[in-house]
Amino acid sequence: MQRLVIVCLFFAALTLVIHPPVQAEEGMFPISELAQLDLRSKGIMLTADELFNPQAVSLVDGVCRVNGCTGSFVSSQGLIITNHHCAYGAIQKASTAERDYLELGFAAESLADEIPAPDYTVRVTEDYRDVSAEVLSAVTGNMSHVERTRAIEKRRKELELAAEQEHGGLRAEVAEMFAGKTYVLFLYTYLKDIRLAFAPPAAIGNFGGEVDNWMWPRHTGDFSFMRAYTAPDGSSATFSADNVPYQPKRFIQVAPQGVEENEAVFLLGYPGRTARHKTSAFLRSEYEVRLPAVVDLYQWQMEVLTEAGRLDRAVEIKHASRMRSLANVEKRSRGQLTGMRRAESIDRRTADEVALQNFIQSEEARATEYGTVLEELAAAHAQIAAAIPFELHLEQLRAASQAFGNGFFVYDSAVERQKADLDREVAYMDRNWEHSVQQLKTSLSDYHALTDTALLTGLLERLSRIEAAHQVPALATCFNDPGTLADRCAKLINGTHLGDGAFIDECLTKTPEQLAETSDPMLQFVMQLYPTYMRLRELDKDRDGQLSRLYGSLIAVKQQFLKRDFIPDANSTLRFTCGTIRSYSPEDAVIKTPISTLSGVIDKTTGVEPFVTPQVVLEKYHAKQFGLFRHQRLGDVPVAILYDTDTTGGNSGSPVLNGRGELVGVNFDRCFEATINDFAWDQRTSRSIGVDIRYVLWITGVVYGAEHLLEEMNVTLAGQ
Amino acid sequence: MQRLVIVCLFFAALTLVIHPPVQAEEGMFPISELAQLDLRSKGIMLTADELFNPQAVSLVDGVCRVNGCTGSFVSSQGLIITNHHCAYGAIQKASTAERDYLELGFAAESLADEIPAPDYTVRVTEDYRDVSAEVLSAVTGNMSHVERTRAIEKRRKELELAAEQEHGGLRAEVAEMFAGKTYVLFLYTYLKDIRLAFAPPAAIGNFGGEVDNWMWPRHTGDFSFMRAYTAPDGSSATFSADNVPYQPKRFIQVAPQGVEENEAVFLLGYPGRTARHKTSAFLRSEYEVRLPAVVDLYQWQMEVLTEAGRLDRAVEIKHASRMRSLANVEKRSRGQLTGMRRAESIDRRTADEVALQNFIQSEEARATEYGTVLEELAAAHAQIAAAIPFELHLEQLRAASQAFGNGFFVYDSAVERQKADLDREVAYMDRNWEHSVQQLKTSLSDYHALTDTALLTGLLERLSRIEAAHQVPALATCFNDPGTLADRCAKLINGTHLGDGAFIDECLTKTPEQLAETSDPMLQFVMQLYPTYMRLRELDKDRDGQLSRLYGSLIAVKQQFLKRDFIPDANSTLRFTCGTIRSYSPEDAVIKTPISTLSGVIDKTTGVEPFVTPQVVLEKYHAKQFGLFRHQRLGDVPVAILYDTDTTGGNSGSPVLNGRGELVGVNFDRCFEATINDFAWDQRTSRSIGVDIRYVLWITGVVYGAEHLLEEMNVTLAGQ
Repeated sequence: MQRLVIVCLFFAALTLVIHPPVQAEEGMFPISELAQLDLRSKGIMLTADELFNPQAVSLVDGVCRVNGCTGSFVSSQGLIITNHHCAYGAIQKASTAERDYLELGFAAESLADEIPAPDYTVRVTEDYRDVSAEVLSAVTGNMSHVERTRAIEKRRKELELAAEQEHGGLRAEVAEMFAGKTYVLFLYTYLKDIRLAFAPPAAIGNFGGEVDNWMWPRHTGDFSFMRAYTAPDGSSATFSADNVPYQPKRFIQVAPQGVEENEAVFLLGYPGRTARHKTSAFLRSEYEVRLPAVVDLYQWQMEVLTEAGRLDRAVEIKHASRMRSLANVEKRSRGQLTGMRRAESIDRRTADEVALQNFIQSEEARATEYGTVLEELAAAHAQIAAAIPFELHLEQLRAASQAFGNGFFVYDSAVERQKADLDREVAYMDRNWEHSVQQLKTSLSDYHALTDTALLTGLLERLSRIEAAHQVPALATCFNDPGTLADRCAKLINGTHLGDGAFIDECLTKTPEQLAETSDPMLQFVMQLYPTYMRLRELDKDRDGQLSRLYGSLIAVKQQFLKRDFIPDANSTLRFTCGTIRSYSPEDAVIKTPISTLSGVIDKTTGVEPFVTPQVVLEKYHAKQFGLFRHQRLGDVPVAILYDTDTTGGNSGSPVLNGRGELVGVNFDRCFEATINDFAWDQRTSRSIGVDIRYVLWITGVVYGAEHLLEEMNVTLAGQ
Repeated sequence: MQRLVIVCLFFAALTLVIHPPVQAEEGMFPISELAQLDLRSKGIMLTADELFNPQAVSLVDGVCRVNGCTGSFVSSQGLIITNHHCAYGAIQKASTAERDYLELGFAAESLADEIPAPDYTVRVTEDYRDVSAEVLSAVTGNMSHVERTRAIEKRRKELELAAEQEHGGLRAEVAEMFAGKTYVLFLYTYLKDIRLAFAPPAAIGNFGGEVDNWMWPRHTGDFSFMRAYTAPDGSSATFSADNVPYQPKRFIQVAPQGVEENEAVFLLGYPGRTARHKTSAFLRSEYEVRLPAVVDLYQWQMEVLTEAGRLDRAVEIKHASRMRSLANVEKRSRGQLTGMRRAESIDRRTADEVALQNFIQSEEARATEYGTVLEELAAAHAQIAAAIPFELHLEQLRAASQAFGNGFFVYDSAVERQKADLDREVAYMDRNWEHSVQQLKTSLSDYHALTDTALLTGLLERLSRIEAAHQVPALATCFNDPGTLADRCAKLINGTHLGDGAFIDECLTKTPEQLAETSDPMLQFVMQLYPTYMRLRELDKDRDGQLSRLYGSLIAVKQQFLKRDFIPDANSTLRFTCGTIRSYSPEDAVIKTPISTLSGVIDKTTGVEPFVTPQVVLEKYHAKQFGLFRHQRLGDVPVAILYDTDTTGGNSGSPVLNGRGELVGVNFDRCFEATINDFAWDQRTSRSIGVDIRYVLWITGVVYGAEHLLEEMNVTLAGQ
């Protein structure tokens, strides 16, 4: 029997190589689609209503967004489980060289010990409705691209404000589902007092580090517990000692028995962005221009940060969060480049477009309406691609140099906040202002002048090699004498106060005219470049307007052609995806099975970063103190699980749920072959990775003794 | 069902990690043991007599040794299949930058086109007999270690000469089976006119290169065809245009249908060296001293060779063979270090020794006889280990600098050949002299003065960092002024004629005294160091004598303790090993299946070395011209196979035979986890790798059109 099955698996592996990937059903379903799905046939015992029902308590009430990640409420007292890498910013901010929670882990012994994470917000989806008609009614046929974009933006803001007035205390957001075509208004509860309750040491939460990132088999305990608080009356409030734990309408029950291979699972979460409906021209610009540029630019920044942290652990901690996020995107981008080459994604999409174009041409009326859509999209993407090197570096200037980025925020907000609320950029609208400022202020603790100087200098050097940059007077001046660039940047950073909270507070009270009179050299530099950024902002709106119109047409004609509806690209709104715990074959003659174990952790442990395992884990392992969490058949604690659901960034922290809606894992990554999920979906190799709930509970309760958290989740260690 | 089996496999993978490896039955059986084996239960349909029978024609007559590798006769006309990497030296020697058979491959259209490989010999095992008593009767109790070694050496030579006189035309060699305990005299036919008949391009024969070396899954077509020739009367002879193909008593029939997973296979071959009966002290010295030193020293030499070949393909070709062999040992050594750490080999063997020592102490007589054996072995190995850095570098001096090595051979042979034949070092005995000179002469075509200078300089620099080297006057002089070392070496190489065949020929006619009068600076340098080499040679004999006595005792008491016989360590004599085509789990959650395919070749092909695939292969692949060699189930051509037989270096080129004794593959490597085969055997991870006969035949017949070779092997492509 073994032979037969191996043979079948091997055959599956082989077909992978020989045949073009099947365009499997893609699965990031908006919650509006749940009722259409045959959940039972997918192994899910809950009804669509039990999953989501705005009129009653449903499973979705147990799911939340935690900054850019997803989380689950796992107790009636607002306890949230999410990834270690999602709580990483909070752990890092709470850590110092002397009290290093990244290294030691953190376990609050009581509510009072939980550490506030001021730059965290938690969002709970309460309701949604389609507002496509209302949004698109703002558009008239004779509008320019920019006018079109502005009209849509404004109408979305109006709808949001109106909804927030109607539903006091809730927050409204209009999401674009299909670009230029469908829009949905979501109502959210926003919770603003979030605290850290438990985090394992990074040696567990980030075991394998960048080496294992985007890889299976995985042995990372990538989880942490946070807790949401509200004002005593239950309303959303920022941190106060008087606040009380948030009481979710519903929490998700953990399933300490875990899950088995081939068992059905589903995920709820907030996947960020995908580009599955974009054309081959877009893929080509990603493959040929943007992704290689990102890899190069991020690798360089990582080298700078590594160098800066080499001698000083305090600086290393400051940069830890940024470093991880750079490394994560850099490796993902490499994976995408490899994946696109292997899957021949561009050729495949081109072939689809040839078929579509033939369909369009086959009828005169259709040809008239849609005949040039693909061509226009190709031209638009080519134009955008040509500008990528310049624009990417200019955009990175704001991200890489914090002083520059802060200066930009200060000046831009002064300009924008003179406008009527609805006419402002979203970040500066009254409803977002407090949060935007909070985010900037929190980031100041990571400011390190020497790193800022190095990154600023390097980025300007890189810009000096791009022709378009020489057309910008403020930059051309810098480039005139390249020998002095480093000095010039050092003077900017040494002379600025844009790393200082008090100075920034002061600036935020000023008008653009008043700011123009300050002597801060960096602020002056920002103002010199500001017109260029404004030109690009305008250009973006122009492109958005054009693309949104063209993609709206493309989707319309594709629906006629394929005679079916599509699932819209991910857009950070709540999505459902389901599948099974399942092995896969990444290459000829290799099968990767879907449950990794503690023995694998031990086997990988070399004692050298990132493969260090805390002594207490080794002791519990050698003493075989596995408690409830020992997998009967494997005789070991499962660590991570693999499943064929459809996820992307933003699904980090998503609950992995069994057919009864119980928590069996926490999603945290995809396998390397699945980095191209963002562009295309292939059920044979697209696999997502979660930490197994048994490992979560074993580490938390057995290894680190936080039994009170297990009790709070209705798990008892008694009888071990 | 699939689930159940995966679960089982997964469990197998897991137990690997949790439990100490089972000491599975090791399997390099001497042919003297064949009669003891239950062949039928191992899936082998042939009887022991059909495998080996000195009184009649048996399968073994179809197996030969090809230099340090194994080969099989696959036709009645002396056609031999072995590995591409075994024929590599011949292909390299025949290649020039203009006519590059490494790059293009080689296919002789007729016998007349086959290319002589003058430094190749082929050896066929004819008979054997145990001569332990005769060898050991030369030893008396009061001998020193050196005397003991010399006495055994001399007796072995006497037995060999006597046997060769008795069996005219055959060659005799006494092999040590258990050190200091058992000796077997083998009778061989030596064939000296070997020619190259077919070699695929290195892009096939070495596909994956050093990246894939020691790895599974593998996609390398590591095979070549050579042919043995004899004088027209059938006697062994060196190359002559009049020679005729050798007619083996028996040839091995290829099985174009190939093999399936879980099918039984067996190998015959000449495994080189294993150390499974050595003590933990030996393993420790390997792990802590010798292997790390080899990795370091070889990596450096590879860098020098790479640099030398970077600008000149002709130089790169000169160094190709040496480069591969350095890279091979370097990677194997790293694998062994990893494997020994993972398998905790030293701890495991130490534990065995504790048990053995307890057994020894449990009886007074036994304690008296064997009580100090382990302790003495530990002391001996520790002493040897301490000298490794110095001795290894001195030994490498002869290998790395060809001029120095040639000088050593010239002077050493002059000294030795003044002695009586039986008293000489083996290489200089009359019966070996011609071959030894031939080998040296052939190597001259690889001589490159600049590389020799770089390696000589580097090795002396390295020696200058080893204290013992400063005790050698000739070296101390070099080290006095380190700044001049490079100049000094350049002068030695520029002034020497030891890269020149005519000069060497002249030297070989001289006595030591005459050589002392030559002005060749390198020869003078060699003579200055000669006493040091002689001291080490003596020391080696002393150590051999001591170790041989101690290991003889160790084996004796181990047999008492374990109450069973052992298989002696590999020693380049003919061995039999059997197993099945079988998957394995190298790590938690990963299963590697045992048949790789052409699709995997295509998938790995990036167009960048070492993953280039010839256009003609791509064309045949895309046209699906698989002919007979398409695997029905996989729908593809199998490329390589994996099996759990017990092999080591020297098994390269071994026939992989199905239960009926037909050729289904050619062994060429082991998986990374099996590099520690040399020290220990673990059936769960020790896997060997062969090229699938279907790939051999497809490449040879379908892709490169050498149908005449297939016909010669009784395979017809008709009906495709």
